[in-house]
Order: sequence, then structure tokens, then C-alpha cells
Amino acid sequence: MIIIGLDPGLACTGWGMIAAEGNRLSHVANGQVRTDAKQALAARLVRLEEELGRVIEAHAPATAACEEVFLNDNPQSTLKLGQARGVVLLAAARRGLEVGEYAARLVKKALVGTGAAEKAQVHAMVQRLLPAAKIAGADAADALAVAITHAHHLATARRVG
Amino acid sequence: MIIIGLDPGLACTGWGMIAAEGNRLSHVANGQVRTDAKQALAARLVRLEEELGRVIEAHAPATAACEEVFLNDNPQSTLKLGQARGVVLLAAARRGLEVGEYAARLVKKALVGTGAAEKAQVHAMVQRLLPAAKIAGADAADALAVAITHAHHLATARRVG
Repeated sequence: MIIIGLDPGLACTGWGMIAAEGNRLSHVANGQVRTDAKQALAARLVRLEEELGRVIEAHAPATAACEEVFLNDNPQSTLKLGQARGVVLLAAARRGLEVGEYAARLVKKALVGTGAAEKAQVHAMVQRLLPAAKIAGADAADALAVAITHAHHLATARRVG
Repeated sequence: MIIIGLDPGLACTGWGMIAAEGNRLSHVANGQVRTDAKQALAARLVRLEEELGRVIEAHAPATAACEEVFLNDNPQSTLKLGQARGVVLLAAARRGLEVGEYAARLVKKALVGTGAAEKAQVHAMVQRLLPAAKIAGADAADALAVAITHAHHLATARRVG
């Protein structure tokens, strides 16, 4: 089963695709969609949706996962992030994917074993779990981390169910 | 020229369509798209995008306008609004519409003559300017107000240009 993880942002959205067979994970692809701050907001959102659409259609994942949002102290930042996040969720859902949402603490716990882990530890663990991956950047690494969290969650749910 | 005004919200998005010929305005249609709080966020965003898409395709406006966001003190509310707003902007832009953005004060000033006007005054003026309109609710009235603001702005820009 192919899983896409998504790390939304208006300037840069990370995506990471992994294949999960039971507990075995392998890397499929990852990347980052950047939008041009000089363009109008609506045009940037269209580009984001179209690029993610292409990625989803190219790899046909079975399910998607997205980190729950860290609420910035700056409401303008929260609004920007929200606008990008709405479009990212839409891009997945209108192509038939359910989107699991995971708190940042849960992603850290799934990868490193503690919700208080540093980002660098999470990224190092992503690289260790997916040794073949050439990771496009920090946002792509975060997206792969949430995909891995989703894979663990689905495997656990199957064992319980 | 037909103009669509948009007042985004996750639970309820208002839309209002007017026809502008120079300074003469007339009502075309208005309504509100509601989403079900019991559904998953991504599914609600898909419904919002699809319903607005139907409205846009039915009336083929030439241009769109959206109120700039009032930043709530509650970051969770700002995030929700942002997610809906991103999808609303996308729904217009991916159907070829440019989206003008107007601050709430500017909408009030365009309708009532002062940026400090009460909402009720704005709604009363919308009804006076569009006497034939049966207004679906407060969000639809806000959407018509921003469409009227956009019409004034375009008429002024033409006079200046």
C-alpha cells in the first residue's frame, strides 16, 4: 500500500510517498512544491493544488496523512498556513484519498519514541528507516515522517482489529 | 459584467452574484454553502469547493471578490477560517477568475460611507441597492457587500484609467 504524507505550507509544501507492507516500509518518492511569493495568493493556491494533483496521480497512493497544525503565535502566519492546508487537504480528498491527521507530538513519538524529540532526530530517523531516499528538504522529511506515522497507525489498527 | 462576492467560512460560506453596468447594479443570485460539522475536515472542504464550482459554472461571473480576513483572537478559529478561505479562493481561481481582496473597513466604507459602520447598516444598504434580492442570510449579505465594493472599485479604476 502506498501512503502519501503531506506537510503543508504556502511558500513550500513537502510531500513524501512510502510503500508499506505490514511493518516493512520503503521509499517511493518525495519532493517539495514551492510557490512564488510575488504571485497573487489565489494563483499560488492553484499552483499548489495542481502540483500535488500531479504527484498524487503519478503515484496513485491509497491513503494520505497530514500533520495537525502547530498554531503560530502570529495570526497572519496561522491564516497563511490554514489557506495552504485547506488546499492540500482538498487536493488529496478530491482525488478520493482519506486524510489521517496526526499531532506533531504523535509523529515524534512514532519515529523517535518520545513526543519531545528534536526535529533533527526525527529527520535522522526518517533517513535511517528509508535509507534509499534522497530527501528533497526539511518539509519533504516532515512529510515522510507523517507518512511513516500513518503506516504504523494502520499496521497497529490491523493487529487490533 | 457579472461579479461574484465571497464570504468564506468552514461551517457556512456566503456567495452573492451581481451584474454591474457602469454604476448600475442588479442582483443575479445569492446563497450560502453549509458543511456538516460531523464530516471529516477534508470532506467538508471538498463539498465547499464543489458547491461553489457549481455556482460559478451556472452563472459564469467575469471576476470575483473576497473580504480580507478578520483575524480572530482564537488561533483555532483563524486556522479553520484559513482552511475554508484557501479552498474558496482556489474554487474561483481554478475556474479562471481573478479574486480581488478588500479589507472589511473598505467594504463598510464603500457601502455606508464609513469604515466604522455596523454590520446591520451594511446589510440594510445591500438590500436597498439590490431591492429585488431575497437574501439567504448574513453570510450571503456580506458576500453581496463585497461584490458591490468590487463593482465600485472597478468603475472607479475605469474612470481613472
